[in-house]
Amino acid sequence: MIITLKSGINKKQVDNITKSIKKFGLTPHVSHGAVKTIIGVIGANEHKHKQQLESLEGVETVTPILKPYKMVSREFKKDNTVIDIKGVKLGGQQVVVFAGPCSVDTRENLMTCAREVKKSGAHILRGGAFKPRTSPYAFQGHGETALKYLAEARKLTGLPVVTEVMDTRQVEIVCKYADILQIGARNGQNFDLLREVGQSKKPVMLKRGMANTIEEWLMSAEYIVAKGNRNVFFCERGIRTFETATRFTMDINAIPTIKHLSHLPVIIDPSHGVGVRDYIGSIALAGIAAGADGVMVEVHPKPTEALSDGPQALLPVMFDSLMNEMRKVALAVGRTI
Amino acid sequence: MIITLKSGINKKQVDNITKSIKKFGLTPHVSHGAVKTIIGVIGANEHKHKQQLESLEGVETVTPILKPYKMVSREFKKDNTVIDIKGVKLGGQQVVVFAGPCSVDTRENLMTCAREVKKSGAHILRGGAFKPRTSPYAFQGHGETALKYLAEARKLTGLPVVTEVMDTRQVEIVCKYADILQIGARNGQNFDLLREVGQSKKPVMLKRGMANTIEEWLMSAEYIVAKGNRNVFFCERGIRTFETATRFTMDINAIPTIKHLSHLPVIIDPSHGVGVRDYIGSIALAGIAAGADGVMVEVHPKPTEALSDGPQALLPVMFDSLMNEMRKVALAVGRTI
Amino acid sequence: MIITLKSGINKKQVDNITKSIKKFGLTPHVSHGAVKTIIGVIGANEHKHKQQLESLEGVETVTPILKPYKMVSREFKKDNTVIDIKGVKLGGQQVVVFAGPCSVDTRENLMTCAREVKKSGAHILRGGAFKPRTSPYAFQGHGETALKYLAEARKLTGLPVVTEVMDTRQVEIVCKYADILQIGARNGQNFDLLREVGQSKKPVMLKRGMANTIEEWLMSAEYIVAKGNRNVFFCERGIRTFETATRFTMDINAIPTIKHLSHLPVIIDPSHGVGVRDYIGSIALAGIAAGADGVMVEVHPKPTEALSDGPQALLPVMFDSLMNEMRKVALAVGRTI
Amino acid sequence: MIITLKSGINKKQVDNITKSIKKFGLTPHVSHGAVKTIIGVIGANEHKHKQQLESLEGVETVTPILKPYKMVSREFKKDNTVIDIKGVKLGGQQVVVFAGPCSVDTRENLMTCAREVKKSGAHILRGGAFKPRTSPYAFQGHGETALKYLAEARKLTGLPVVTEVMDTRQVEIVCKYADILQIGARNGQNFDLLREVGQSKKPVMLKRGMANTIEEWLMSAEYIVAKGNRNVFFCERGIRTFETATRFTMDINAIPTIKHLSHLPVIIDPSHGVGVRDYIGSIALAGIAAGADGVMVEVHPKPTEALSDGPQALLPVMFDSLMNEMRKVALAVGRTI
Repeated sequence: MIITLKSGINKKQVDNITKSIKKFGLTPHVSHGAVKTIIGVIGANEHKHKQQLESLEGVETVTPILKPYKMVSREFKKDNTVIDIKGVKLGGQQVVVFAGPCSVDTRENLMTCAREVKKSGAHILRGGAFKPRTSPYAFQGHGETALKYLAEARKLTGLPVVTEVMDTRQVEIVCKYADILQIGARNGQNFDLLREVGQSKKPVMLKRGMANTIEEWLMSAEYIVAKGNRNVFFCERGIRTFETATRFTMDINAIPTIKHLSHLPVIIDPSHGVGVRDYIGSIALAGIAAGADGVMVEVHPKPTEALSDGPQALLPVMFDSLMNEMRKVALAVGRTI
Repeated sequence: MIITLKSGINKKQVDNITKSIKKFGLTPHVSHGAVKTIIGVIGANEHKHKQQLESLEGVETVTPILKPYKMVSREFKKDNTVIDIKGVKLGGQQVVVFAGPCSVDTRENLMTCAREVKKSGAHILRGGAFKPRTSPYAFQGHGETALKYLAEARKLTGLPVVTEVMDTRQVEIVCKYADILQIGARNGQNFDLLREVGQSKKPVMLKRGMANTIEEWLMSAEYIVAKGNRNVFFCERGIRTFETATRFTMDINAIPTIKHLSHLPVIIDPSHGVGVRDYIGSIALAGIAAGADGVMVEVHPKPTEALSDGPQALLPVMFDSLMNEMRKVALAVGRTI
Repeated sequence: MIITLKSGINKKQVDNITKSIKKFGLTPHVSHGAVKTIIGVIGANEHKHKQQLESLEGVETVTPILKPYKMVSREFKKDNTVIDIKGVKLGGQQVVVFAGPCSVDTRENLMTCAREVKKSGAHILRGGAFKPRTSPYAFQGHGETALKYLAEARKLTGLPVVTEVMDTRQVEIVCKYADILQIGARNGQNFDLLREVGQSKKPVMLKRGMANTIEEWLMSAEYIVAKGNRNVFFCERGIRTFETATRFTMDINAIPTIKHLSHLPVIIDPSHGVGVRDYIGSIALAGIAAGADGVMVEVHPKPTEALSDGPQALLPVMFDSLMNEMRKVALAVGRTI
Repeated sequence: MIITLKSGINKKQVDNITKSIKKFGLTPHVSHGAVKTIIGVIGANEHKHKQQLESLEGVETVTPILKPYKMVSREFKKDNTVIDIKGVKLGGQQVVVFAGPCSVDTRENLMTCAREVKKSGAHILRGGAFKPRTSPYAFQGHGETALKYLAEARKLTGLPVVTEVMDTRQVEIVCKYADILQIGARNGQNFDLLREVGQSKKPVMLKRGMANTIEEWLMSAEYIVAKGNRNVFFCERGIRTFETATRFTMDINAIPTIKHLSHLPVIIDPSHGVGVRDYIGSIALAGIAAGADGVMVEVHPKPTEALSDGPQALLPVMFDSLMNEMRKVALAVGRTI
């Protein structure tokens, strides 16, 4: 940790600051420059006392040296974590494809969709039962009924199922039906929920909050891992920027950044990240080329009947064609689908 | 709702679209321009079918005409809503001042702080019991113990108390002690939590999510009001932008915008919005000048002992001086403190 | 153009508005909804009168239907524009690779770099002569000396040369030496400069302004094309967002969006877009997978001697290896390098 | 400057780095922590070698300690700079009001406007002669004709005149007519233009680039001051964010931040910063309360005739009423208008 002091500080003030540092059980190393005095505090539990040190009279800035996350970091675990989802290996050589409707609507549409994406080669079925909607007047998801349909679709196709859990009180029931718990973008810093899924045994897909830095996102994963659940993976789904031509701005940079900083898998969700049907294929391919361990795509057999996000859903035939393109790009970067 | 069709669309395709519109129970008005064909759909429950219409083959864009929120809108209720918080009137002529520590630490610090801010003229005591922290290793709040201290401080000073509720399961216990339920920025779109506080009888302070548009923020309030709780007010606390010189970017524009679009009160939180002790006073005054109905400021008698956000806490003596400045600006815009 | 009127407007006010619309030579179509009155104005030179219509008493919003750009749009010209740069075809089947140092420093380093990137298969040599630097105290480029070195390197390798022009007064001299004129991100809306290069005969590489929407970027290209220079191509180089783990946020969504909206080629600059050496390769591959017509990469034989952006420069050996990976991904999406 | 080394670095690599540091003429101080090794380089010309140090093998991050700007900093000059604009003192006790049309259209409208704003108490007349417009098909300003009208309006009212200069080649002619040279937001990092106005003798109003950090903005001012022109002041006019309810997001935090970091004056432009007529007054008042040294407001006698930005122009009668409100808020913060 490097503490920069304000210009024109006198010896007595510096002494006061070093005394306070020692009171926190830390060891200060003072260096007087021509213009600035700085204090190095090495090897300490830096982040714990950062704000208290910043509050000291005469302190200008406090710059931590160590990263604030631990168990999710590449330094903590050098090798890639591979998560086993009922036999599907995420984080290894294979690029894993998640597909299905944004929200579960009719039983029939879900079964059709599940059969179609399975046939095209998808590995995981997605579908929303509890839906976070901007408007209280919009469709909020079919809840447990939808969970039951998902379980039925899994039985039908053998595809493991991922679905969102929005509230701590839903964790139990979602665990009963789903193979992966999804934490949505709007709950990316719902810390009680993170702790709760950290106590479950199910793999967790952690979507990036739309205003969260990569560091904050890693910290949210740390919440889950710190509670004992090591089967966490990231899903980049776009961040909020000034651009309005697309629904969000897909942060493709996050893919190599996460792979560099963490041992956990990361997938990409082009459906939300770009939000325009015609552009989704390009972004899915870009994600694989950038090193993503998986891709999640919204597919719906009848988009105009969809109860949410129809405009960004691919028809099964489009998805099938995209699968072929994704296979080629995966091969080009030394992976398979 | 205005539907713009893709260029080069033929008559049959237009007919298909109008048929679909009618199937949703809506009436289409087609206008053929030299370059573009557009379809107007007036008076309908626009937002409900927006995505389904966007999913139709040949549709380029769908632009709603009506606002998606209802009960929180100025059109629904022309006069300002005034919320009565144990006798403190928020949303009326008086600018209401909320003050206190970021998080409750020792009983003694809280009592000192409460007495001091009361003496300086604050109207509401703030203090965190459940704390949303980026790091799982940081102080997470003293929970019910802190709530009890807050209740004791209220007894001591007569100041009503606001504190954050982070999880649906905490609503009951927070209601037991607090006078206002705070929804924090990270839960601005935690819809289950919004519904839950919508069923309580306590006034709700809804902080703006750091990536939420003003429209989304109004929709979050609509969630609460739609559940029956009309005592909701907004708290602008800064949004995420590229600027790093300050903690967040205070969106001062949001104050007149909210006052224009909604009848509900809006306050400003300069402590989080700027995050630098030396700048907080300026932003507090700016908020009042812009028309805010209240100001919330973090105050701590010993910032270096604070367990969160010490660097942005004002000392009681600074707060006292700020109160005097705020009084003058309030008077200048025809209000009192 | 759709004009939405304020709620509660009376007949006389509506008449005033329609009169004004007619005065602008436009034809209004009024529709009275249950809640809102809207006026459609079809087929007009919409954008010209937008602000004047917005200024009318009683008008709430004015939504244009037509796009504000013309000659750069896909609607104006259906087929991809292919730009011939001394025999290198940009915008066709081949993915064009631009490589070289951020700024030209020593003659020797430039010749080494040019030879190396040529050997690895690059098609265009990049190198800065006039450098836009945040600090007035930083290296500002070697100016004409650097231009001469670039011309010499072209002679040596046969590679056409791209370099930035920062000021209208530099256009003449840069045209004398360079094969492509680069408009940098900071000049993305320097309209006098856009007009000036629009009057030159050289192809123009238009980098995206770091706060420019895709629509504004297209409008900047329209400035150049409207002056008679149709050889314009786009270079996505990252936008400003809240994320600080990377230098900028590469807007990968812009690639399919530009290809959809415009007939002009678009390339990607991962060196600036991500700004971290270790991540550049991933983003270059992502760009090709997303459909970019070219990739520009900074290469320097001795990054610690570079006078700008050394930390993001690839060594020639890294670039050579990246070329191999890029070739594979290009093939996977049906292109060559 | 603090250099953090990558984890797991060996002694030989550290030696290589310290050797390189010495080669740059700097003195390294190595500290070995339990986890990380860091090297302090104090008192050096930090920013000059930052990128070269970052390029060294084994270096993780380089954190400068000193600020990159010098002559514009509060540390360089403790007292506020007061700029004398033909007798109007900017940066002192008085809040200076700039008013006038966005762009100069007819001679008559300009004279009317000048007389009206003078009558209401404005101190400086604004008006655009060269207009930076997103579209090449929009009105681009009347150029020298407009400059002559502005000079005439100055003669009529005695008000000094500010107008924008967009290109280095315009500096001479704008200097001939104007009292203040405006650098617009789109030219905030047009470094040739900054250098050029730095060589003129006229005061310069430097608008903030819509994607520029406060530090970059200070650096742009440094460009001007470094060329010998010390009469520079800042104009905060809003930044680009995700919010679309207003035209830009006024960064009110920038006011106290600039006052803290620099001795130069700063004013606020609510007309562009919020862009909605009804909200401009609130933001103007907020700016004064926050400590701005001036306010610039667009006023037009006939907004529907305005050739740019009519929707955000105040009528003279509205401006007159705003002047009264601004006077009260100025008094409340110990200033006058």
